[in-house]
Amino acid sequence: MISFARGVPAPELLPVEELADCAKTAIERDGASALLYGHTLGYQPLREWIGERHDVDPARVVVTNGSLQAFHFVLSAFAGAGRVIVERPTYDRPRKILSEFDEVPLDEDGLDLDELERLLERVERPAFLYTIPTFQNPTGVTLSEERRRRLADLATRRTLPILEDDPYGLVRFEGASPTSLFELEEGNVMYSSSFSKTIAPGLRVGYVVLSEAMAASLEDIVASTYITPALVTQATVLEFLRRGLLEPNLERVRGLLRARRDAMLEALDRELGGRARWSRPEGGYFLWLELPEGTDSTELLGRASEAGVTFVPGSDFGGGRGSARLAFSYASPAEIDEGVSRLAGLVPATAAA
Amino acid sequence: MISFARGVPAPELLPVEELADCAKTAIERDGASALLYGHTLGYQPLREWIGERHDVDPARVVVTNGSLQAFHFVLSAFAGAGRVIVERPTYDRPRKILSEFDEVPLDEDGLDLDELERLLERVERPAFLYTIPTFQNPTGVTLSEERRRRLADLATRRTLPILEDDPYGLVRFEGASPTSLFELEEGNVMYSSSFSKTIAPGLRVGYVVLSEAMAASLEDIVASTYITPALVTQATVLEFLRRGLLEPNLERVRGLLRARRDAMLEALDRELGGRARWSRPEGGYFLWLELPEGTDSTELLGRASEAGVTFVPGSDFGGGRGSARLAFSYASPAEIDEGVSRLAGLVPATAAA
Repeated sequence: MISFARGVPAPELLPVEELADCAKTAIERDGASALLYGHTLGYQPLREWIGERHDVDPARVVVTNGSLQAFHFVLSAFAGAGRVIVERPTYDRPRKILSEFDEVPLDEDGLDLDELERLLERVERPAFLYTIPTFQNPTGVTLSEERRRRLADLATRRTLPILEDDPYGLVRFEGASPTSLFELEEGNVMYSSSFSKTIAPGLRVGYVVLSEAMAASLEDIVASTYITPALVTQATVLEFLRRGLLEPNLERVRGLLRARRDAMLEALDRELGGRARWSRPEGGYFLWLELPEGTDSTELLGRASEAGVTFVPGSDFGGGRGSARLAFSYASPAEIDEGVSRLAGLVPATAAA
Repeated sequence: MISFARGVPAPELLPVEELADCAKTAIERDGASALLYGHTLGYQPLREWIGERHDVDPARVVVTNGSLQAFHFVLSAFAGAGRVIVERPTYDRPRKILSEFDEVPLDEDGLDLDELERLLERVERPAFLYTIPTFQNPTGVTLSEERRRRLADLATRRTLPILEDDPYGLVRFEGASPTSLFELEEGNVMYSSSFSKTIAPGLRVGYVVLSEAMAASLEDIVASTYITPALVTQATVLEFLRRGLLEPNLERVRGLLRARRDAMLEALDRELGGRARWSRPEGGYFLWLELPEGTDSTELLGRASEAGVTFVPGSDFGGGRGSARLAFSYASPAEIDEGVSRLAGLVPATAAA
């Protein structure tokens, strides 16, 4: 089975030997401070490292067991506020977690800000906007620099809180990094990220940068959730960072992922050129495929699975019935080439939508 | 400051070198299976080890980031059911987490089953009974063998679900281990424990054994909480177990804790004999102190802190105003001796309550 479904790194992307040694050193050196309960909001030296990276006081950094857990904590801080606004399509987990939400469509330059403004005219008082502005999950789309500035401005004017989720930003293969929303408008932007795509997801180390007051207000709920996050893995991440292994690892990961992205784009051009459309992300894990009009991607998935290739139908993310998320992070370039061929063989030979 | 407040192991109880080496080996050997997302309900080989230990199918084992997280998952499975019944006094976290609960008092033989029966006559339909039958937090009290059999029988007769929380059971210094409720009445008993007291709390590896249907029903909520628990630490625990390090570590930990418990009992006998009462636990981390009538332990804590010794007032756990939880797990025997002397010097010289 060739998987374009799994949004996970291929095993060869993982720095296994380095992490094994970092874990050993971290435990030996930190001993009790990594093996006892520690600060509820995360392993203090890692909070300091992240604070320095984002040029904020470490008291504003909450390190969690993965950034999804951070999303829950942010949600709890907005309990009783209005609905969350999400992108359409967006990451399926928040869609499942939120019982109700408002949606704003995105296009190839990211979130449609005219639509957002129209929504804000209609809704009473939203809790916050949840956005993944860089190499978005599921589309791979990046919010343009111009729209970032306009969105930051809008957040200020309307006092709209924004949760900027940025797990993929550092996994860029080419082109210049845009300014983060957090850098543009720190007052209303909460920034979350993780080490899942830059080191390894099984460590479950994510974080969110909040106002100091909001971070402090979370202490009780965090303590009542799990007392303390898993400190051993946070100490391991810190050791990896302190050894200067992040940058070389990112270089390696970017190269391996770029080859996969290239393999997917080449195969799509060859196999589906003129019959379908897809995004061309400069980084991240995913691209978004719009199949020929009339194609139902859920139905296609059934036939694709029989042919030994899987993906996630776009409807899981709030996308149209003809859309699909293809992850290029997991399969090898050769598998990607073969998988796209198999998939294309199942797509009706009609004109592009 | 001498702390009888912290319910954590002294640093010398932690097997630092062994864990450092286990973490390295676990990551090197398991590579991707520990460093990618894995099974939502926990690291599969550890689920198998725990399943074997409790003689249940591994599909019934949910391994979490600490057992408090397991408590939340169990709660979510009972959402919409009646109120949870807890012991009075009980572990302060569940008291904080549950917005409403019913309480049943305990005495030196554990939960008062006559009171429980009376409560069950009154309440419509409780969600479940949460109990820590062995070396209870905060009292150190253990449910007698006879009451265990009666409680198991009651659970069957009334179809009363029980969550048996057993983090301290293996930390026994003397005497025979009683039969667990889970062994007596598997049908209605959910069993939770952790490696926090037997290996190290900072690993955050806890678990709960449920019915297979209930474990499966939790997959969605677990995935929506954190996708996958921290697998690296679970793989590290498994390596520790597979190397046969648990039993020798337990022997060492029991010896160190027994010396602390003995130091506390000796100092209490010497300093407060005839003036106060306290439990004499055969294991665990805590004992329960009942101060002379009229003493307010919260007020005493203020003066004790000034004298360099801390504890947790019993009222934090639902206990009376003259009660206190003394942890003997953290301070050294010499500190314990000194701390009890200081504390006793602040207690009014009246007769025992």
